Amino acid sequence: MTDITSQLEGIVGAANVLTGSAIAANYQRDEALTAESAVPAYVVHPRSTEEVSALLRLADTERIPVTARGSGTGLSGAAVPTPGGMVVCFEHMNRVLEIDTDNYVAVVQPGVTLDALDTELEPQHLVYPVYPGEYSASIGGNVNTNAGGMRAVKYGVTRHQVLGLEAVLASGDVIRTGGKYVKATSGYDLTQLVIGSEGTLALVTEATLRLHPRYPAQATILAPFPTLQGVTGAIPRIVGAGVEPLILEYIDMLTMAALRATLGLELGIPDDVKQEALAYLVVMLEDTHESRLEEDVGELAGLLGNLGAIDVYVLPPKAAQDLIDAREKAFWVAKGANADDIVDIVVPRAAIPEYMAKVAELQQRYETLIAGCGHAGDGNVHLSVFQPDADKRHKVMREMFEIGLDLGGAISAEHGIGTEKKRYFAELEDPVKIELLRGIKRTFDPHGILNPGTVFD
Amino acid sequence: MTDITSQLEGIVGAANVLTGSAIAANYQRDEALTAESAVPAYVVHPRSTEEVSALLRLADTERIPVTARGSGTGLSGAAVPTPGGMVVCFEHMNRVLEIDTDNYVAVVQPGVTLDALDTELEPQHLVYPVYPGEYSASIGGNVNTNAGGMRAVKYGVTRHQVLGLEAVLASGDVIRTGGKYVKATSGYDLTQLVIGSEGTLALVTEATLRLHPRYPAQATILAPFPTLQGVTGAIPRIVGAGVEPLILEYIDMLTMAALRATLGLELGIPDDVKQEALAYLVVMLEDTHESRLEEDVGELAGLLGNLGAIDVYVLPPKAAQDLIDAREKAFWVAKGANADDIVDIVVPRAAIPEYMAKVAELQQRYETLIAGCGHAGDGNVHLSVFQPDADKRHKVMREMFEIGLDLGGAISAEHGIGTEKKRYFAELEDPVKIELLRGIKRTFDPHGILNPGTVFD
Repeated sequence: MTDITSQLEGIVGAANVLTGSAIAANYQRDEALTAESAVPAYVVHPRSTEEVSALLRLADTERIPVTARGSGTGLSGAAVPTPGGMVVCFEHMNRVLEIDTDNYVAVVQPGVTLDALDTELEPQHLVYPVYPGEYSASIGGNVNTNAGGMRAVKYGVTRHQVLGLEAVLASGDVIRTGGKYVKATSGYDLTQLVIGSEGTLALVTEATLRLHPRYPAQATILAPFPTLQGVTGAIPRIVGAGVEPLILEYIDMLTMAALRATLGLELGIPDDVKQEALAYLVVMLEDTHESRLEEDVGELAGLLGNLGAIDVYVLPPKAAQDLIDAREKAFWVAKGANADDIVDIVVPRAAIPEYMAKVAELQQRYETLIAGCGHAGDGNVHLSVFQPDADKRHKVMREMFEIGLDLGGAISAEHGIGTEKKRYFAELEDPVKIELLRGIKRTFDPHGILNPGTVFD
Repeated sequence: MTDITSQLEGIVGAANVLTGSAIAANYQRDEALTAESAVPAYVVHPRSTEEVSALLRLADTERIPVTARGSGTGLSGAAVPTPGGMVVCFEHMNRVLEIDTDNYVAVVQPGVTLDALDTELEPQHLVYPVYPGEYSASIGGNVNTNAGGMRAVKYGVTRHQVLGLEAVLASGDVIRTGGKYVKATSGYDLTQLVIGSEGTLALVTEATLRLHPRYPAQATILAPFPTLQGVTGAIPRIVGAGVEPLILEYIDMLTMAALRATLGLELGIPDDVKQEALAYLVVMLEDTHESRLEEDVGELAGLLGNLGAIDVYVLPPKAAQDLIDAREKAFWVAKGANADDIVDIVVPRAAIPEYMAKVAELQQRYETLIAGCGHAGDGNVHLSVFQPDADKRHKVMREMFEIGLDLGGAISAEHGIGTEKKRYFAELEDPVKIELLRGIKRTFDPHGILNPGTVFD
């Protein structure tokens, strides 16, 4: 037993330190398709902020690289440990500390999963509206990737729903940022800076989350279109109609076929419509009143018809749930189909048709299959890239990112840069901005112990 | 003519450089009640990002302090120049560059006023929903103070509505952050870092703003209450009712009387109700459909009755407009009444009753009149402090801030720290966090030329 191990055991207790062969494979990776596993020297499970603080104080002194880990469901490699480093797991810090129904906030520890939080909120008719598609994901991980998902078109992303944080700096100092309020101009916004920083600035030990009323009435509409451009071109008009969609997704023909084949999704669409449809639009609405919902569904159906939908289906609840569940499993379907990499680029939503047309051209030129679906209301396109040749894949993906950036987009909408997209980030992002990021990183973490090699080198 | 003056004239043209006695008093101050005027050496009016970049390159080389100025309507002293420094005025960079009705964004220069933007948006049935109560305020100033206002209870503050920026660093380097999208996890969020930084990190030369549909139907409800606690205690229940108020304000008896006396506000409230009312609640609702609005107004009126309102008035449009206008002029009424200082603290909204009770105790103890109104839905309380003795005033205000911070609040909700609240910020904020702010500042502005002495020393 090394001296470090005994010090770690002194901090969190022997039962909460793993070393050597006790470190299961699960702690050596996240869900990124392309990231290599790596073996840390230590996996620790703190139970309190004080323990996290003591762990970081030790790591900073001993210059041990630290990787924070929530549920390990990330898709960018940000939770893959540094070889020989320390993984700090938040599985034991999984308590919902408070549900404050006056201020409409929940205060939670980072290891709380979306599932667990929702279970507590449902009986109170409240909702935390960030649904990144993986209910086993933890709030800590969500904060660090600024998780998004399907409901962002109405509620925004994690950044818009986190009001405050408790976080431990590399030095072991504990800070509290923000609070149970939406409004503040009292120094630079450290809450917003830590959100989306992928474990490189601080370890989050508590989050104050905004809650919303849980609307009782929901409706899901499926509209097949004869072309992908038809779907993506319809988006701005639907957003402009003022019905405030909760979900606004497109699914291309290949992806819909794969969801059907893999998950047995059956939506009751006649065969001739299936034949004709090259893409699908999914719109979910919610309301406080059933009557208002019905009125909006009627208006929306009329609009979709005018916008060129082959037909408009208001799905029964079971089929609607199946479709949304299937859409959330799109990553697993892509993985099952042996996709070689995935892209979650964002472009201005009105630029999606142009982006997809250019991607179609890339498919031809690089003889590479690219298929997917997307949070169309947000301009966030999820594409699977099937190209086993790594060099060719890098070229086609670099072009996919370049095209998106030229249209005013960003490399990652919600998965993060992690380790797996940092090559593209380094190649395509403004070096002046990367220098600013480095300066901020040095301010928070002067010895570079927090998730080194993530986002930038 | 100094060498610096001639260089400035070379950059922006002689007509756009003011020095010496040509510098009007207006450029020497903002609207902070307590800030002393200061005379800059130069006032320059750039017309383009390139000119701003050249100005900062020169200022950085020559170590000339730079204060950015929009409309000069700030309340915290952040736009008061450094003596001998340079004021960069954005009055000539006042173009709405684009209103993009597909992506629902406006791209504007920093000198665009809220008034000018609204004039362009109204015919398109769109709205930029940040209404900080001063329509002559500029977008650049709003970004730098993270302006809030009455509609924040529904739409959030400037931070939630700015999607991207173009900004010039102290070095003269121009960066672009964010874009026409809500979702991104691609490096730390520099947009959010610059928002609310009060001119200390970069000069904003362009902003991409989120737009919303302009709802055709609006209703304003006024409810007098027998106690201030009655009003503030009703707030969480109204937010919880799911009617999504656009505005949710309280006005105390003294402030209502002052608005009436100063502005001639006449709302048709019977005298006996006026006698009994110690505080007023103002709720504004908006909707796409007139019928839904009427239904919600009915529900809300019933709720307010149950919550202890003396009566509930649905104001006719003219009276409603007068009341909102008067509420927005509350600062000017306080100034006219010779208030010695103002506080715009934020606390969790459910903590307002406790906060106000403790402030009432301070009034007694310090023999200091404290009156006001507030964005009650946000926990944001605006109070005027009438205490001419500076030492006594510092003590009472420090206690007001301490009480708010103990309740989980922040010193400034929307005016900013500026120069006028930095003493309290330095005394009461966590020094570890202030060190982080300093480190970030050094990264952006290594020679400290940008608005030195604002937020922190």
